[in-house]
Amino acid sequence: MMIRPAVTALTLLWLIGVYWALHAQAAADREKFLTEPGIYGTFAVFALNEEWAKQDPATKIVRLTSLKGVVEQHREHVVIDLYLLRGLSDHADLMFRIHAAELRETQEFLLDLKSSQFGKHLKTVGVMHGLAKKPNYVPEFQDQMKADLQAISAPGQNPYVIVIPIRKSAEWWGLDQEKRAAMMQEHTAATLPYLKTVKRKLYHSTGLDDLDFITYFETSKLEDFHNLVLSLEKVQEFRYTRRFGHPTILGTMKSLDEIVELLAQ
Amino acid sequence: MMIRPAVTALTLLWLIGVYWALHAQAAADREKFLTEPGIYGTFAVFALNEEWAKQDPATKIVRLTSLKGVVEQHREHVVIDLYLLRGLSDHADLMFRIHAAELRETQEFLLDLKSSQFGKHLKTVGVMHGLAKKPNYVPEFQDQMKADLQAISAPGQNPYVIVIPIRKSAEWWGLDQEKRAAMMQEHTAATLPYLKTVKRKLYHSTGLDDLDFITYFETSKLEDFHNLVLSLEKVQEFRYTRRFGHPTILGTMKSLDEIVELLAQ
Amino acid sequence: MMIRPAVTALTLLWLIGVYWALHAQAAADREKFLTEPGIYGTFAVFALNEEWAKQDPATKIVRLTSLKGVVEQHREHVVIDLYLLRGLSDHADLMFRIHAAELRETQEFLLDLKSSQFGKHLKTVGVMHGLAKKPNYVPEFQDQMKADLQAISAPGQNPYVIVIPIRKSAEWWGLDQEKRAAMMQEHTAATLPYLKTVKRKLYHSTGLDDLDFITYFETSKLEDFHNLVLSLEKVQEFRYTRRFGHPTILGTMKSLDEIVELLAQ
Amino acid sequence: MMIRPAVTALTLLWLIGVYWALHAQAAADREKFLTEPGIYGTFAVFALNEEWAKQDPATKIVRLTSLKGVVEQHREHVVIDLYLLRGLSDHADLMFRIHAAELRETQEFLLDLKSSQFGKHLKTVGVMHGLAKKPNYVPEFQDQMKADLQAISAPGQNPYVIVIPIRKSAEWWGLDQEKRAAMMQEHTAATLPYLKTVKRKLYHSTGLDDLDFITYFETSKLEDFHNLVLSLEKVQEFRYTRRFGHPTILGTMKSLDEIVELLAQ
Amino acid sequence: MMIRPAVTALTLLWLIGVYWALHAQAAADREKFLTEPGIYGTFAVFALNEEWAKQDPATKIVRLTSLKGVVEQHREHVVIDLYLLRGLSDHADLMFRIHAAELRETQEFLLDLKSSQFGKHLKTVGVMHGLAKKPNYVPEFQDQMKADLQAISAPGQNPYVIVIPIRKSAEWWGLDQEKRAAMMQEHTAATLPYLKTVKRKLYHSTGLDDLDFITYFETSKLEDFHNLVLSLEKVQEFRYTRRFGHPTILGTMKSLDEIVELLAQ
Repeated sequence: MMIRPAVTALTLLWLIGVYWALHAQAAADREKFLTEPGIYGTFAVFALNEEWAKQDPATKIVRLTSLKGVVEQHREHVVIDLYLLRGLSDHADLMFRIHAAELRETQEFLLDLKSSQFGKHLKTVGVMHGLAKKPNYVPEFQDQMKADLQAISAPGQNPYVIVIPIRKSAEWWGLDQEKRAAMMQEHTAATLPYLKTVKRKLYHSTGLDDLDFITYFETSKLEDFHNLVLSLEKVQEFRYTRRFGHPTILGTMKSLDEIVELLAQ
Repeated sequence: MMIRPAVTALTLLWLIGVYWALHAQAAADREKFLTEPGIYGTFAVFALNEEWAKQDPATKIVRLTSLKGVVEQHREHVVIDLYLLRGLSDHADLMFRIHAAELRETQEFLLDLKSSQFGKHLKTVGVMHGLAKKPNYVPEFQDQMKADLQAISAPGQNPYVIVIPIRKSAEWWGLDQEKRAAMMQEHTAATLPYLKTVKRKLYHSTGLDDLDFITYFETSKLEDFHNLVLSLEKVQEFRYTRRFGHPTILGTMKSLDEIVELLAQ
Repeated sequence: MMIRPAVTALTLLWLIGVYWALHAQAAADREKFLTEPGIYGTFAVFALNEEWAKQDPATKIVRLTSLKGVVEQHREHVVIDLYLLRGLSDHADLMFRIHAAELRETQEFLLDLKSSQFGKHLKTVGVMHGLAKKPNYVPEFQDQMKADLQAISAPGQNPYVIVIPIRKSAEWWGLDQEKRAAMMQEHTAATLPYLKTVKRKLYHSTGLDDLDFITYFETSKLEDFHNLVLSLEKVQEFRYTRRFGHPTILGTMKSLDEIVELLAQ
Repeated sequence: MMIRPAVTALTLLWLIGVYWALHAQAAADREKFLTEPGIYGTFAVFALNEEWAKQDPATKIVRLTSLKGVVEQHREHVVIDLYLLRGLSDHADLMFRIHAAELRETQEFLLDLKSSQFGKHLKTVGVMHGLAKKPNYVPEFQDQMKADLQAISAPGQNPYVIVIPIRKSAEWWGLDQEKRAAMMQEHTAATLPYLKTVKRKLYHSTGLDDLDFITYFETSKLEDFHNLVLSLEKVQEFRYTRRFGHPTILGTMKSLDEIVELLAQ
Repeated sequence: MMIRPAVTALTLLWLIGVYWALHAQAAADREKFLTEPGIYGTFAVFALNEEWAKQDPATKIVRLTSLKGVVEQHREHVVIDLYLLRGLSDHADLMFRIHAAELRETQEFLLDLKSSQFGKHLKTVGVMHGLAKKPNYVPEFQDQMKADLQAISAPGQNPYVIVIPIRKSAEWWGLDQEKRAAMMQEHTAATLPYLKTVKRKLYHSTGLDDLDFITYFETSKLEDFHNLVLSLEKVQEFRYTRRFGHPTILGTMKSLDEIVELLAQ
C-alpha cells in the first residue's frame, strides 16, 4: 500500500526532472564560479529534524521534489553542490556549498530552501561564508602547479570532501608581509606531494565569520589527505593558527539526484 | 481556499498601515538617536520557533500585524531597525537594533514584543547593549572624516549589515592613555580607504554585557568590508583583542514592511 | 468571556494580599540581612517555559497567586528581592535574590517555588551563591564612605540592577596579602566618583560556586555604572581576573506585585 | 479523590520498607567501602524531566517505590548515598554517590535505575568516577589527623555536601615527586584548622574521566568550608590546577526516605 | 499479555540468528581489520531517545531485530564492535567501533543503521575517525612487546573499554623528528608495566577530525589502567598535549546479543 504512491511520486519526480532538463533556465557558469576571484562561497550545514524519519515514503518524495524545485529555481544565480555528512560528521546530515557573485543571492536561495516543504525538516547546524581571491602564490611556482590547484572536480566521482575552518592568531597578522610570505612558501611546498590526489580550494572569511579561512578539500584517498594535513602541521606557519577545524566537516560529494534517492529511503 | 483569507488579512494589514500613517504619534527623532552620544543601542537577535513554519498564511499575517502594532506603539520612545539574518547567520532569523535614551524603554518594547501574538514565535538568541559616546578621534583628523563616520544610512538601500562584538584584554586597559591613543590612531588610519563604502557605528558595552564594544557596519560591498577587517587585524591594537565576533552577525537591512512580506510567505 | 474570570482572579489576588498584610508572620529583618556579615546571598535566574505564554489570563493569575504564596510563606526566614531580566538579559526572564542565614533555608524556598503551580513554568538558567563578609576596607577610608557602600536600596525606585560574577586567577591568590591589599586600595579609589550613583554589594563565593565573587550593583544612571566598570578595568588588580561576567546579568528591580502584574499580561 | 490513593500508596511504600527491613539481604559493608583503598566512587547527577511535575501524587509514589526497590536490590554490592541538589546547583535535582569494588556493579545499578519506573524521569546531567587510594600523607603527620581525615559521616545529620572535580596541569605531573610532596604538605597544613568541621574524601580519577581528582566535602558550617577553599587557593600547589569545579556541586545529604518524601510532594 | 508477544518476538529473533548463522555471507576478516595498517576505525557514540523507554517489550524486540539485521548486512565490509556506555559515560548509551578499508563503507553502515527501525531511537552523540598506521616503535624494542601491543581481545571477556581522543599542540608538531622519537620512547617505556593487563590500539586522526589521535584501551583491571595513564602524564611528551579526553569514553564491551538482551528490558 505504501509502495504504490511512492512509485507514483518517484515517477512524478522523474517527470519533473525531464521537464527541467528541457526547460531549464541558463545555469550559472559553474567553472567560472568555482575558479574566478570575487565569488562568495557559503557552506550551509543542516541536520534533518526528528519528524523526517517519521514521514512515509510518498510524503518524503513530495518534499524532496520541493528541494529539487528550489535548487532548480536558483541555478541561474548560484552554483550549488551537495554533500552527504550523515554517518561521517557529528550532528549533521547535509551540506550545501553555494557559490554566488553576491551573498544576497545566497541568502535568497537559503530563504526559499527553508520555506520549502523539505526545508521545514532542516535544522541549521552552521553557516560559514568566504570569498575566493586571486591566488597569492610565490612567483617561482610553476604554472602547472597553479593550474592543478585551480582544477575543479569532475562530476560524478563521489570523492570524500573535508572542510576545515581556520582562524589565525593576532601574532600572525602582526608579522610583516615578507615573513608571512616566506612561511606560506614553506606551507605550499609541503602540499606538493599531494597535488595530484588532494584538490584544494581556499576561501577568505575575515570579517564575514568568526574565521580567517575556509579550506575545502576533495580526495579519493583519505590517507593522502591525512598525510597532507600532518605535513602542514609541521611547518612553522601552523604555530600561528588559533583554530583549526571545530568543526572539521567530513562527507561525501553527491549529486542532487543521489541525495534525493538516499533521503527517500 | 487558503488564498482568500490571506488576501483579506493583507488588506487589513494595509489598512492598519494607512491608519497608522495618518494617526501616527510623533516618532522619536531618528537622526538624533543614531548620531548623538548618551543614546543606548540594543541588538536583539531572534530565531523563529518551529511552530511558525506550520502556521497558515492568514494566521501568519495576523501575527505579523501584531509585530507592526508593537513597533508602532513604541516609536515615540525608541528607534527600531530590522535586519534579516536567516540564511546568513547561524541559528538566527531576525535582528532588531533599538536605540533609546534609557534601556528601560528598550525593555518595555521587548516585553511587549515577546507578549505579542508574533512574539510567541520568537526565541531569543542573544541580546547585547552598548552606549554611544562622544567620538574620541585624534585631533588632527579632518572634519569631513568625522562627518563621514557619523553618517547614517539612507533608508531603502538594503545594504549588508555586520555586527561584531569585541572584548579587549586586561593588558589593553592597563596601558596608559597615550599608548592606547597612538594605537587607535593607527587603527583609524587603516580604515580611511573604506570610509566611503563601509559605514561604521561604535557602541561602548563595558559593564552592560560581556563585551567592551559592539561594532556595527553597513556596506553594499562586502569585499571592501572584508579588506577593512583584514587591515584592522594587522595593526598593533588588534593584539590586545581577546574576543572578536563570537558571534559575527551578518544580515541584510530590511524595512518593517519587507520583513512582514518575507515572513508572510 | 476571558475577561471576567481574570478580573475575579485579580480580586482574589488582591484579597489574598490584604489577608497576608493583616496576618503576616514576622518577616525576616531586611536591613539586617542585607548589611550584616555571615548572611548568604543566592541569585537564582529563571526563564519562563514555552507553555506560560499559552496560558489564558485567569490561569496565569491563579499560578502567580502561588508565587505570592510561596514568597509569603518563607518571608520569616529569607529575604527575597525580584528582578525583571526579560528584554535585557539573554535567555532569562526573572531573577530572585535570596538572603538567608543558612543556605538550607534558601533551598527550602526554592524547592517550594519549583513545586508551586507557578514554578512548573520556571526553567532554571543559573544559581549562584555567595557570603557577605565583614568589609575589608583600607583603614584610612572615611566612615562616611563605609556607610555609603553599605547602604541598601529604598524600595520602589525600580533602578537598574547588574550582577557580575568574578573569578580571580591563581596568581592573585598566590600574591602576599599586602600586595593584594595595595591593589584593592587602588581598586576602591577608582570607585569613589561613583559612590553616590552606583550602589554595590559584594558576595564571597569561593568554594560555593565556580566563582570567587558575585558583585551586585544598583543604579539609575547606567552610564555612570559603565564608566565605573571602565575605571575598574584600568587598575592593576583587573589583570588578575580570569572571569568577569559570563554572564553579566542586567535587569530592573521590581516589587512582587509589579512582577505579578507584568507576567499576568 | 487524589488524596486517598496517595495515602494508600504511602502505606504500601511503608509496608515495602518494613518488608525490606525484615528480609534485607546482607548489605555491603558501608564503613569498609567508604574508608578502604581500591574502592571506586561514582557521582551520578540527575535532573527530573518536565513530566515528573505533571504526575499525580499516587503515580509519583508508585514510581518512587521503584527507586527504593532498585536501591534495595543492589545494596549487597554497592553502597549508595543520596543528595538533594535542587535549589542549590544548576540544572540538577539529585546526586547518587555509589561506592563499589568494581565499576561494573555501579553500571548495573545505574542501568536498573534508568530502566525503573522512576528512572524514566531522570535525565543524566553528569557522571564522574574516581578511585579511593591509600592516603599519601606526609609521614610526620599525627595519627589522629589521619584518623580524622578518614572519618565517615554519621547518618541523619543532613550536612551540606560539596563535590569539586579537579584537573592538574601537565606541569604538575612533570614536577619531580619530592617537589609535589612538599607542595602537598603545604596544602594539607592549610586544611588543619578545618579538620573538625569539614570532612573530606579524595577520589583519584586520572584516565577514568576528564579529571585527576574528585574532592568530596561534608560540613554543617558552609562558612568554614568557604574559608578552607580560600586557604587552599593561596598555597603554591593551586597554581598547578587547570580546572577546579566546573561544575561545583552543592547540595544537602538526605536519606532515601527523605528523598522519597520530598519528591512525592 | 505483554509477555507472550515478547516471547514470540524473542523466538523470532533467535530464528533470524539461526538463519544468519547458516546463511551468513563471508564476514570481513576480523583479525586483519584489527591489526593491519591502512584500516579506518570509527567510533560512533549514541544515546537512546526518550521514546525508547516508552516502547513495549515486543516493539523493542522487533526494533532490536532491525539492529541485528543491519549489522549482519554489513559484516562483509566492516567489522563492528559494540560497547555499553550507559551508566559509565555522560549522555551516551551505546558505542559502535567500526573498522573498514574505506570510510565510505562505514558511512553506508551508519546510514542504514540510522534508517532502521532501531536507528530512529538513536541520537548521535559523537563520531570520531582514525586510521591505523604501521607502528612506529623504537627499533630496540623486542618483538614480543610488539606482538603484545598488537594483540586483539578474545571475544566474550566483557572488559572495560576506554577511548581517549588526543590533540597535540602546534609545538609538538614543530619539534624535529628525533626529539619527538626520543619522547615517544620515554612514553612507551612508561607503558611497559601494563602491557599484560591493558591492551591498547592507536588511531591517527589528523585532518579527519578535530584530533590527532584516538587511543583505545581494554582492561579488566581499571586500577592498572588508571596507573598507566598517571604514568603517561608524568613523561615529558604529555606537556605537548593540548586536549586529552573531552570526552573520555568509558564502557564495557558487549556482544551484539548481550546488547540486544540488555536493551530489550
